[in-house]
Amino acid sequence: MRVLGIDPGLTRCGMGVVDGEVGRPLTMLDVNVLRTSSSEPVPIRLVTIEKGIDAWIEEFQPDAVAVERVFARSDVSTVMGTAQASGIAMVCAARRGIPVALHTPSEVKAAVSGSGRADKAQVTAMVTRILRLTAPPKPADAADALALAITHIWRGGAQSRIEAALLKARR
Amino acid sequence: MRVLGIDPGLTRCGMGVVDGEVGRPLTMLDVNVLRTSSSEPVPIRLVTIEKGIDAWIEEFQPDAVAVERVFARSDVSTVMGTAQASGIAMVCAARRGIPVALHTPSEVKAAVSGSGRADKAQVTAMVTRILRLTAPPKPADAADALALAITHIWRGGAQSRIEAALLKARR
Repeated sequence: MRVLGIDPGLTRCGMGVVDGEVGRPLTMLDVNVLRTSSSEPVPIRLVTIEKGIDAWIEEFQPDAVAVERVFARSDVSTVMGTAQASGIAMVCAARRGIPVALHTPSEVKAAVSGSGRADKAQVTAMVTRILRLTAPPKPADAADALALAITHIWRGGAQSRIEAALLKARR
Repeated sequence: MRVLGIDPGLTRCGMGVVDGEVGRPLTMLDVNVLRTSSSEPVPIRLVTIEKGIDAWIEEFQPDAVAVERVFARSDVSTVMGTAQASGIAMVCAARRGIPVALHTPSEVKAAVSGSGRADKAQVTAMVTRILRLTAPPKPADAADALALAITHIWRGGAQSRIEAALLKARR
């Protein structure tokens, strides 16, 4: 399974592609942070983000796209831009028929580090270890995008195993 | 000048097209409310909104798109969907090179009714009068979209007149 993880943001939008399945070593294919300048109008910045995500979907042909779920409670100054960028990410995937999953920051932290309250350094350290990278991905948005992709593979895998077990039990 | 006004929302997205210029009677070309069901996943709902807006831009070829500016202070339960829908509206226009303007609810209310604190009924009544409609547009999202388009024509017109005057003064 190949997953494109997206940590949405207007100024920095993290994208990471991870390949693999539960119980096997995962592989990072690529990671990047799309940047747009706050001196540009928001519609133009959103188009830059759309183009960047579209290009990666074209290149990597992911089986699923995992996007961080944005909450209205977050930092008010950035939350609207984050919500708009997350909407663009969802549309880029959905209009091609690629399944989209949303994972909360706590779910991602818990999946990669075992604690829903892990800090950024812990998440980055675990992502580096899980993907057997030679150096930690930078900036934090890059690590977060990879963590989202890892979370999706692991949660999706667990759900599939539970579903498979239920199907077997019903037979 | 032809303006497509968009009152963004995930459940109801108002769209209204108004033609005209400052100091002349304005004409409504069409008004509609895109609806998506809360039982569908958000990415699918956003694609429905994207398709609906794209179809109207194709049909009416507006010179500008006016979108309501969303604030994080608004109703927390709907603000994320509204922000995502507004991002889609901006991208639909910007990727075709159509200028996008954002107007706040108070700016729209002040433009059409003279008061930034006008209620929905007042806005609807003024939109009906300004566009010389035989019946008030319903629901409120339809009236709001038309009010946005009217605001854009009137504010744009005023700004153009000021700019023209400044240019003349410099010559």
